[in-house]
This record gives sequence, structure tokens and C-alpha cells, in this order.
Amino acid sequence: MSGVRLLDDDELAPEAKAVFGDIRAARGSEHVNNFWRALAHDPALLARVWGQVKATMGPGALDPLTKEMIYVAVSIANNCEYCVASHMAAARAKGMSEAQLMELIAVVGLASQTNRIASGLRVPVDGRFAAPPAAADS
Amino acid sequence: MSGVRLLDDDELAPEAKAVFGDIRAARGSEHVNNFWRALAHDPALLARVWGQVKATMGPGALDPLTKEMIYVAVSIANNCEYCVASHMAAARAKGMSEAQLMELIAVVGLASQTNRIASGLRVPVDGRFAAPPAAADS
Amino acid sequence: MSGVRLLDDDELAPEAKAVFGDIRAARGSEHVNNFWRALAHDPALLARVWGQVKATMGPGALDPLTKEMIYVAVSIANNCEYCVASHMAAARAKGMSEAQLMELIAVVGLASQTNRIASGLRVPVDGRFAAPPAAADS
Amino acid sequence: MSGVRLLDDDELAPEAKAVFGDIRAARGSEHVNNFWRALAHDPALLARVWGQVKATMGPGALDPLTKEMIYVAVSIANNCEYCVASHMAAARAKGMSEAQLMELIAVVGLASQTNRIASGLRVPVDGRFAAPPAAADS
Amino acid sequence: MSGVRLLDDDELAPEAKAVFGDIRAARGSEHVNNFWRALAHDPALLARVWGQVKATMGPGALDPLTKEMIYVAVSIANNCEYCVASHMAAARAKGMSEAQLMELIAVVGLASQTNRIASGLRVPVDGRFAAPPAAADS
Amino acid sequence: MSGVRLLDDDELAPEAKAVFGDIRAARGSEHVNNFWRALAHDPALLARVWGQVKATMGPGALDPLTKEMIYVAVSIANNCEYCVASHMAAARAKGMSEAQLMELIAVVGLASQTNRIASGLRVPVDGRFAAPPAAADS
Repeated sequence: MSGVRLLDDDELAPEAKAVFGDIRAARGSEHVNNFWRALAHDPALLARVWGQVKATMGPGALDPLTKEMIYVAVSIANNCEYCVASHMAAARAKGMSEAQLMELIAVVGLASQTNRIASGLRVPVDGRFAAPPAAADS
Repeated sequence: MSGVRLLDDDELAPEAKAVFGDIRAARGSEHVNNFWRALAHDPALLARVWGQVKATMGPGALDPLTKEMIYVAVSIANNCEYCVASHMAAARAKGMSEAQLMELIAVVGLASQTNRIASGLRVPVDGRFAAPPAAADS
Repeated sequence: MSGVRLLDDDELAPEAKAVFGDIRAARGSEHVNNFWRALAHDPALLARVWGQVKATMGPGALDPLTKEMIYVAVSIANNCEYCVASHMAAARAKGMSEAQLMELIAVVGLASQTNRIASGLRVPVDGRFAAPPAAADS
Repeated sequence: MSGVRLLDDDELAPEAKAVFGDIRAARGSEHVNNFWRALAHDPALLARVWGQVKATMGPGALDPLTKEMIYVAVSIANNCEYCVASHMAAARAKGMSEAQLMELIAVVGLASQTNRIASGLRVPVDGRFAAPPAAADS
Repeated sequence: MSGVRLLDDDELAPEAKAVFGDIRAARGSEHVNNFWRALAHDPALLARVWGQVKATMGPGALDPLTKEMIYVAVSIANNCEYCVASHMAAARAKGMSEAQLMELIAVVGLASQTNRIASGLRVPVDGRFAAPPAAADS
Repeated sequence: MSGVRLLDDDELAPEAKAVFGDIRAARGSEHVNNFWRALAHDPALLARVWGQVKATMGPGALDPLTKEMIYVAVSIANNCEYCVASHMAAARAKGMSEAQLMELIAVVGLASQTNRIASGLRVPVDGRFAAPPAAADS
């Protein structure tokens, strides 16, 4: 099924071993999931992707659960079954209730419907939506 | 540019006119945007889509701003320029800050990257992610 | 495999039970497929989606088989394996022959090829295609 | 705007000139649209793509208008603005009414909604949909 | 699993049998993979698609391995699991190393990230990128 | 048109200014394109994305032009007009000929056609393609 062999801990290059250690520390769990075991064939890529996950998904202007739900929504629209499964589990672990999940699904479905309708009818963007706010970065 | 002519208020069938009135009341604004003016060629479809927007996007287990940001994220992944523009404006109107917007964009970008990596390497879903929680609906 | 548990008939909330009854009546079959059993976790969403299916897929300006084939084509382009399987079965049940199926597949493939070529070469829309007909809604 | 220059008639290689002649004959019109003028940079590719269009879009088990509407639906889901514009014009030229267009749009929107819901909830394919009919090709 | 039955050699129409013979000759292998066995339900479509593969994927201005890697990259972005699996095998057979595969994956992931960021922020195309080179075809 | 204002050099935060300096040095050009001017609203995100571009797109197991063409191919399939325009310009700057461009487009188109055919017919992956090579990483 897998396009590359999933690497066991004892097959890791040193740089990959260090990333796995960091993943375990950050998540407080010994489990390192298959995504990282596939990426470990390229330790530098593994390090870059993990570095971004750490930098992006922590607390910031948005809380971690909101980010996780956005991640799930994008993964659905991009049709990545692996990512839908793993990030839905992550969202649940961060407190997403089943009612919140179903509302998330409802929004994803509705947006997809109106997305295609707007593209199909080639609706021109309203003048008031076309430009960023006058002081977008303030 | 548009695939169908955008209807003016005085061209609306009675059912469409009623929906426009409801849109104006719900939004507290006289402006009815181009999406609805294109959909108005099919008043029954207009009514169904608007009905869903009302039922889905209001307060619930998720707050309206979170839903609006999920809507934006999906619209990006589905590549609907109209919807990205209109729902980004809506999210700003509901209080999304520019810092929140940039974090939203960062999550959408990161998810899209890992989505394609997981699909490209055909990573099998970990056993622990494969099944719903034992009592998913409780 | 499933992201949420599929609900059995005896687990349904009253609103969901009513929708299942309507699905059975409309289809003249006791079988209610997995899609609805997953959606039943949110009875209001279940009712909205089913309501749309009934309103959209019946006879109208297009016949039901043509609509079903369009549904299949979109599901292929959106990469929904579940929907391709279920709506291909529905199209066959409505009379789609195997020769029609193969022609449908040929059109989907050809459109996808030219879609990417046009996007890749960024071909500008011909003036004559850019605007809707003068009296698009008459 | 264009990724390659659109070729005028007097810039065509002989093989491309022959294809343009065939397009004009098949369509009974002097107009050769921008898509073919971009493709003409590679006369062999131009000939292959045009050959497929002729072989696929004519009468068969499906009538030409049904095929054209399927083409539009796929182009919407694949987000090709050029193709949506050009094939919507072609569908209208083949007799698609505005009521048929709006129903087509409604089906595309609904399918896109249920596509994402099914993928988001990772609904497993029902046993009865999983296999082709016993004698699929008879 | 399959939407149509995969045809065995002794079920092929004469035109399909000829194409299978040509596939075997071109590849120097008796194995004809499932894609062609599904397409064989429509011998004319089978012949057209195979004809294109032969015309497109051989040596030209790009070498066959580069083309095969582009094919894999597109298949990932289009989410075709079958095609990712089969063309990754083909790329390996043509000499793609595991280091090259991982770089290919890295580029696909990075492009997908920046694709969504650019679409999400609706970045306008720089003037210098908007037009084709003055003599694009020379 | 833009979703956020494009920042001028004199509006940059110090971290963003440093990244712009690095972009200019790496490319040997004063021009910093719009993508980076939009991203500059979030200097940390700007730095992360630019860091990845540098790490990914340079020489490695694949040469820079091959990577750039893969980038273009993915951008087409993901429908990012900005990225198609900017990376097609980059590929030309790295030596891509017009004949190579047209072959790239031909492969993207063909892959997209067979991707949808395989997904539409739900062709099961051949056993010989399902698993990675025995020693995939050696």
C-alpha cells in the first residue's frame, strides 16, 4: 500500500532520530505515526516539515483547536484520506466534540457547494470585496 | 465575465424577491452581492442555498467566526476566487484580525503541503486513526 | 475506516428516523446507505441534505438519468470514491448502459485533459465566450 | 495573460494549418478559438487533442448536448475558467436552455457538497456498490 | 472495488486485442495492467488513450524519466492513487532513485503549499510574468 | 484584486527586510515579486516559506530545471494561476525551451486524463504496484 517502506526506529539516520525524539517530546507520546516514518527517508525534508508543524500549529492569534479544524477542512477539500484521519484524531484529542465535528463537516460541504456554483456561473467579484482593507496590516 | 446576467432587483421573480428581503434583513444591509444575483435565475435553488447558509453559518457548537474561517480555508483549497474574496471580507467583518488571517493562510498552506506528501508516498492510515471513537456520538 | 460510527436504525433521533422513512419511501427500498447513516449524527444536517437531493435530482428541465451522470462526472473530478461508487450504481439503476458509462468516462477524461492544458497555457477567454447571452434568462 | 503567444493563421505550420481547416469544416465557422491557437505551437499535440474531441464529442450512446453538459460540469469541478466559458457557449449553441443550465449548476453544487461530506466522514462504500454488475459489459 | 469488470485476454474485442499486443510489444512484457483491462470495455477509447501515451511519453525535448516524474507529480496533485502507484513504479523502472523520489515529493509538497498561499492571498500576477516572451515559439 | 496589500520595501519589519535581502542575493536581482510582498505581513511565515524554497529548489538528486518543471506541473493541477505564471517564467529563465514547455503541457494533460479515467472506473491497483521495492531506501 505504501509508496515507500515505513522506517522503524532502528533504521533512522541520526538527523531523523533527533526529529523523532522531538516529536515524542512535543506530543508526550512514544507513538510516531506513519507519515513521519515515510518522510524519514529524507531526513532534511523530515526536519523541515516537522519544523513547520511546530511553528504553525501551536498557540498564536488562533488557538490550536481552531487550527486543527482548519487543517481537517483543508485535508477534506484536498482529498487526503490519511490527513483527514490523522488530523480528525488530533482535533478530537484537543477537545473537538462530535457536535463540533458535524458542524465542521456542514461548513465544508456548504462551502464546496457554493464554491462550485460561483465558479460555474463565473460570478464576478463585487467591487467591495475586490480590495484589501485600506490598512490591512494595522 | 459572468456566465449569466446578474439580475437587478426589479427583474426578480416573487420567490427570489422574498429571499433577497430575507438576506437584507439577516445582514442588516441593503447590499445583496453578485452570487445571489446570479443564482436568482433559479428562485427555488436560490431559496435552498440561502436556507442552508442561514442554517449552517449561525452560532452553534462552533462560533460564527470559526465557521467563516473554515469557509475561507475550503474556498482556497477548492480554488474559488469569488468565494475567497467574499468570505474573507465576511470573516473580517466578524472580527478576524490580520494576524489571524495570516495564521489561517499558514495552516492552509501547511496542510496542503502535507496532504500531497501523504498522498504521494501513499502513507497507510495508522491503526489508531482508522476507526471512530468507541462512542463517537456520545 | 469510517470517521464516525454508522448509526443503526434503533439509534436514530426522531428527526433522523423520519428522514430515513422518507428515503425508504422515495426509493421504494428498505436499504438506507452508509452516507445517510453517517450523516444521521446531525439530524438537521441530514434533513437539509436529503431535502436538497429530493429537490434537485427529480425530473425537471433535465431528466433524472442525465442528472445522475452529471453527478457521477463531478464526483470523479472531485475524487470522491464513495460518491462515484454509489452514484454509478444509481445511474445504472436508472438505465445507464455500459456503452453510455464508457462515453461518460471518455468525456470526463477529455475534459480533464483540456482543462489542464488551457490552465497551463493560461489561454485567455475569447471575447465571444466572455459574456452571457443578451437575454440569458428568457 | 496568455502563457504562450496565440498564433495567427499565417504563422501556422502545415500540420497545424490542416487541423485548423478541419476545425472550421467540422464547426461550419471561420472562428478558431484561442485554445487551438495556443496549442498550435505543438502541431502534433494539436492534432491529437483535436482528434480526440472529434472522436469523443459526436453522437454515440450519449447525445452531443448531454456530453457537452458533462464537459461543463467537469470543467467547473476542475476549475478551468476558460473551459467553463467555452463549453457553456457550446452547450447553449447545441440547445441548452437557461433552465437546463441552472439545473446543471444545481447538480454540480449538490454533488460537490455530498462529495466533501462523504470524504470528510470517510464513509465506507456499501457492499452493494463495491462491485461492478455481474455482466458489466453485456 | 472496480467500477467495471477487468477483462481477461480471451474476452477482448479484436481492436482491443490489437492494442494489448502493441502494449506488450512496446513494453517488452506480457503484463498488461488493470487500467487497460478496464478501458478495454471501449476498444476505441482504449486505442485513443494508448495512442496518446505512446506519442507523449517517448523521448523528445524531454527525456522519458523526466516525463514520468512529471506524470507522478500531476497524479499526486489530482489525487489518483492508482496512477501514483503505477507511474511511480514506471519511474523507478526508468531509473528514478529513491533520493530523486524524495526530492520529487518535496517539490510537490512545496508547490502545493505556495499554490494555496498565493490563491488564498489572491496575489496579483507581476507584470513581468503576465505575458509570454516576445518570440515564444522561436 | 489582492487579498492583502502588497508591502513596499519601506514597510517591512526587520525580519522581513532580511528575507528580502536574501531573496535578492540568491536571485541576483533587485526584483522581489508580489508573492513575497504579500507574505511579508507575517515575517515568520515569510522566513519559513523562503527557507523551504532555498532548501528544496537548488541542485540535488534532481537538477533545478527539472524541479522547476515539476513545480509548474503541480501548479497547473492545483489551479494556481499566479504560480503557473511565475514558475513558468522561472523555468524559462533556467533554460526551458518552448518545445520542452509544450511537452510538459502534453504530459500534464495526458496524466489528468488518465487520472480521471482510473478514478472514474475505480481501477484497483495491480499487485505488482502496491508495495514499495524490497529495499526502497538502499
